[in-house]
Amino acid sequence: MTKQFHDRSLSADALDQIFREARSYNGWLAKPVSDEQVHAIYELMKMGPTSANMQPARIVWVKSEEAKEKLASLAMEGNREKILTAPVTAIIGYDIDFHDELPWLFPHTDAKSWFEGDQEGRKQGAFRNSSLQGAYLMLAARALGLDCGPMSGFDNAAVDEAFFGDEPKHKSNFICSIGYGDPKSIFERSPRPDFDRFNRIA
Amino acid sequence: MTKQFHDRSLSADALDQIFREARSYNGWLAKPVSDEQVHAIYELMKMGPTSANMQPARIVWVKSEEAKEKLASLAMEGNREKILTAPVTAIIGYDIDFHDELPWLFPHTDAKSWFEGDQEGRKQGAFRNSSLQGAYLMLAARALGLDCGPMSGFDNAAVDEAFFGDEPKHKSNFICSIGYGDPKSIFERSPRPDFDRFNRIA
Repeated sequence: MTKQFHDRSLSADALDQIFREARSYNGWLAKPVSDEQVHAIYELMKMGPTSANMQPARIVWVKSEEAKEKLASLAMEGNREKILTAPVTAIIGYDIDFHDELPWLFPHTDAKSWFEGDQEGRKQGAFRNSSLQGAYLMLAARALGLDCGPMSGFDNAAVDEAFFGDEPKHKSNFICSIGYGDPKSIFERSPRPDFDRFNRIA
Repeated sequence: MTKQFHDRSLSADALDQIFREARSYNGWLAKPVSDEQVHAIYELMKMGPTSANMQPARIVWVKSEEAKEKLASLAMEGNREKILTAPVTAIIGYDIDFHDELPWLFPHTDAKSWFEGDQEGRKQGAFRNSSLQGAYLMLAARALGLDCGPMSGFDNAAVDEAFFGDEPKHKSNFICSIGYGDPKSIFERSPRPDFDRFNRIA
């Protein structure tokens, strides 16, 4: 029996931690992130929903100096220092041929056949659902007491070649540095829209 | 000064609530979701990071019987009953011309000019970032004691016409029912991958 939490809100502190006070950091304290922490992030994020449990995200966690230098060299100039100084930067990619894994990821029906011959639909599904998984990654990292700095300013094709070169169906979506954010590296928070601006109840 | 939560993990119960025990529901208890709850979800989700604070999500929260019937009629057969019986179903769309809002959403630089004349780049940015926002929506709803049932099986073009007809640059991404999940409507959880299957530390 699954646990339910109907009408139970997370504490104000927990909501602050993952949503209201969390910020995207541009600089990092000199404090490492362990492989155990990286694993813990994944153990949470993989529980988040994806369409037909497709789990299309393929992630390279860039931690070594050599890998950081390679990734930084393929990023926009404004992102290079962030990547070099972050304890770890996740390259969140996706597998266009995720459907090959569906026989074990979604075992109760033949979901693989839904996607065969539909490369355009697979690209869209992989991009949408790996983006969802990237969001789960960020909120999972925050939930564990870490900070994030997501970025899309890099050369996707060059990153694919450098980090997914042996898997031509794996493509990069976005990247996200993870560590202990330096409070001196952030500015005033950008404004957020009122409900009525971008929402409608029908 | 922003609050930081370095090395503070959310409680085991909170992690269960938003990640580990949460499920995608196929059926709903007969218990309504108020407009105040819908607003509360948005107040949390809008705090999540988007690229250049672009906030491309445009959301129609389908609550009336008439709107539910219209949306259900445009969904795959297996999703119709779910939409009709859910207290509310959010249509998470995005604005391809989100850059028109950047002068106030990202006021400290001329971010609008980065996107002008690049409709393909805007489409990709809007799709990626509205997907992130859809994930924030789901985790925000769970954090407030609600359950989710995301779906992508519907006729996007027909939903755009029916619900975003007066805004031709608004496109649907995916939909998500929200309410109090009926534990009888879920099956055994689909398997989740081990870290080494889809991850690599470089």
